[in-house]
Amino acid sequence: MSLLLVLAPIASSQPTDSLQIAYIATAKQILTYGLSDGKAYPMLREFCTTIGNRLSGSVGDARGIDWLKKKMEQYNFENVRLEPVTVPKWVRGTTETAFIVDRNGKKIRSLRVASLGMSIPTPTKGVTAEILEVITFKQLDSLGPLVKGKIVFFNRAFDRTIFNTFPGYGATVDQRSSGAARAAAYGAVAVLVRSVTPVIDDHPHTGTVNYTDSLQKIPAAAVSTRDAEVLSEMLKSEKAVRIRLTMNCHTFPDAASANVIGELRGSERPNEIILIGGHHDSWDKGQGAHDDGAGCIHVIEAIRILKELNIRPRRTIRAVMFANEENGLRGGKAYAAVERPNEIHLAAIESDVGGFAPTGFTVQGTKDQLNRIAPWSYLFTPMEADRITNGGSGADISPLVDKGVLTIGLRERTERYFEYHHAETDVIGGVNERELQLGACALAIMAWILAEEGI
Amino acid sequence: MSLLLVLAPIASSQPTDSLQIAYIATAKQILTYGLSDGKAYPMLREFCTTIGNRLSGSVGDARGIDWLKKKMEQYNFENVRLEPVTVPKWVRGTTETAFIVDRNGKKIRSLRVASLGMSIPTPTKGVTAEILEVITFKQLDSLGPLVKGKIVFFNRAFDRTIFNTFPGYGATVDQRSSGAARAAAYGAVAVLVRSVTPVIDDHPHTGTVNYTDSLQKIPAAAVSTRDAEVLSEMLKSEKAVRIRLTMNCHTFPDAASANVIGELRGSERPNEIILIGGHHDSWDKGQGAHDDGAGCIHVIEAIRILKELNIRPRRTIRAVMFANEENGLRGGKAYAAVERPNEIHLAAIESDVGGFAPTGFTVQGTKDQLNRIAPWSYLFTPMEADRITNGGSGADISPLVDKGVLTIGLRERTERYFEYHHAETDVIGGVNERELQLGACALAIMAWILAEEGI
Repeated sequence: MSLLLVLAPIASSQPTDSLQIAYIATAKQILTYGLSDGKAYPMLREFCTTIGNRLSGSVGDARGIDWLKKKMEQYNFENVRLEPVTVPKWVRGTTETAFIVDRNGKKIRSLRVASLGMSIPTPTKGVTAEILEVITFKQLDSLGPLVKGKIVFFNRAFDRTIFNTFPGYGATVDQRSSGAARAAAYGAVAVLVRSVTPVIDDHPHTGTVNYTDSLQKIPAAAVSTRDAEVLSEMLKSEKAVRIRLTMNCHTFPDAASANVIGELRGSERPNEIILIGGHHDSWDKGQGAHDDGAGCIHVIEAIRILKELNIRPRRTIRAVMFANEENGLRGGKAYAAVERPNEIHLAAIESDVGGFAPTGFTVQGTKDQLNRIAPWSYLFTPMEADRITNGGSGADISPLVDKGVLTIGLRERTERYFEYHHAETDVIGGVNERELQLGACALAIMAWILAEEGI
Repeated sequence: MSLLLVLAPIASSQPTDSLQIAYIATAKQILTYGLSDGKAYPMLREFCTTIGNRLSGSVGDARGIDWLKKKMEQYNFENVRLEPVTVPKWVRGTTETAFIVDRNGKKIRSLRVASLGMSIPTPTKGVTAEILEVITFKQLDSLGPLVKGKIVFFNRAFDRTIFNTFPGYGATVDQRSSGAARAAAYGAVAVLVRSVTPVIDDHPHTGTVNYTDSLQKIPAAAVSTRDAEVLSEMLKSEKAVRIRLTMNCHTFPDAASANVIGELRGSERPNEIILIGGHHDSWDKGQGAHDDGAGCIHVIEAIRILKELNIRPRRTIRAVMFANEENGLRGGKAYAAVERPNEIHLAAIESDVGGFAPTGFTVQGTKDQLNRIAPWSYLFTPMEADRITNGGSGADISPLVDKGVLTIGLRERTERYFEYHHAETDVIGGVNERELQLGACALAIMAWILAEEGI
């Protein structure tokens, strides 16, 4: 039961004709089969435990690509192939430490830190300096010359009061992505960034730091939220807090990677493509289970279910597992850059919000496009995934927007995502089997109805 | 954003007048405060770790009552009090074992079992007999005389294909609750019941067994789903599988317990009551975190938030934490049996579906009553808890239905509930802070609007 069945009148969303009744039957078949014989969780468990994390250019990256390709072949996907992508190769150092030190440089306390992805290393002996706590960029600007020679400690907390945690993340992540460039402009020697997570925990949450080419690059590290709180408290009572940050991470020349592709070919219009995708790369902490192993498995499981049930829609559903979403988006850009003269992409759906219970879809399109898709909510009401609204779709498919492709995001519960995000806790143990499977079912239904009906 | 804002026309649910706009502001205030300064999780953590489980008549039961009363006093609830309830007192034995044995009685393999609550014990040396696998009661009836002298092994699996796991539970739990009485009618000597959980795990999930007074009582135990699968496999190849079940659980004379009550008195019509409740007793496995520590904390936190924000609605909101939901419902019956001549109960809301993300409310009332409440969904849309539908409310408040009280259930995501239910895994570690807090916010908003508007 849902809102749809209660609040009259929503006649336009009530199934009335025989086609809608047939569609409801197919959607139910997908859900029932998925919940009884789904393979999403065992697949993700295997992916996480046998491959592990998959940072671009790493051994795990290559092995993940191979695993995904073989899995699609095993399930008899059509046109399984790789499309080559050149990716950045950044490698976390064997050393990444931060200590609070006294004025003689003696260690007082260690801090839980992780180099931000793409950070430059420190000198071998580390960078030692006073820290300067900064909450907003405006505050940084007002401090101006005081920043010189300091380690800027960006300590803006995640805004937990926003119901959807993604905007909460969006309101905080700028200090991680561009804090180093901003601080370097004022002569800072390094940045320490509060992990972008809504919980107080002991895990540094990594992520990309973006430098500005015209400015000095300075080392950048994430510090756990609990240690960030400790530092902030110390700064209230201590005249000065000095930190020594030491990291030997390294950026190598670009490396070879690939987008991984497979299909369920359409029965009538195979050259009209409904793309469903996730990204196969991950950060080098944890196993990349929610980010974005879950998305890759959603995509494979969605097509596996349709094949298993002999549901072959009119148009082609193409699974694309993109390379390098985390630190370059090279996979998404490369896919969009390929000329595909004999094909037209009607829509692309991305799953990159974890493996939590699905709640609907976000349509990044015109009002007319939304009005075309939203009435299909009746197909998702039995699984309470019927919130079809305007919203962002996904990073990997964003380069397709300029090519006129309608992009859509799978929408899920967001309460837990950023507890795991980019941290060593993003492992299979944090994924619930039923929630993951429901996501695959929702994706299968949306891919199928789009491929059947077109847009 | 939600369905409400997308699918036109639902004009009746769109806030249009100034009162609705003021209501939205209050609901937002409750949500924002709850997400920034909520205490639901630290409260539940303290309740679970300092009190532990709370089976009726146990030391934990008494300590839980005391803790809840003190917590309400600490937060300055009004009219904090206990109402005495006499409860059954059943105590799990120091021994509860099951072994597969050979024809000489030698142990071959142990099984993970737990006495069902209220079960009689076995003789000291146990009950040893062949097991007879039964899936449906119809099958039991058809076996008839073959049942005599056997241990009936009820092995109907949880129906995972039903999206909402509560009906899935409902479709399976009868073998636990009435299997023993049914099997005893055919001369069975004991029953072993597959744990009523959708997952394959190693934890027996307990729960009440109901005997029929006119029939022999026989010992009843739950077996873990993994061991149930093992037994079922064995029965496919072995001619006979013999089990020795030994349990020394015991039923004592009834004991003293209490319903725990506190209030936020109404400003204009204090004698009109909106009851919000959960049950404070739990099974003696785990910590009763989701079942129903979460409900008790939802109730306390909901009123704490309203008090903290100085929101005093016209009518009284009364928190009732009921005794003995699990094995007797004596608390709910006792509360309903008390004559309260100067009061009228307008509505009662129960939280007894765990501490998962709230999705709305189920109204166990007339169509008119639903039509009165469902339009308030706009207050819950910002937190995606706006599914207000017909449905069951809660066991503890069910005795109020006959007294003409409208009963309502808090509705939550159901994917994970029965993984923890009645098992030793139902501990604070299985509860997510944000999900729990959202439930308290949803309950606070519904209690407040009901107390403000009446019904």
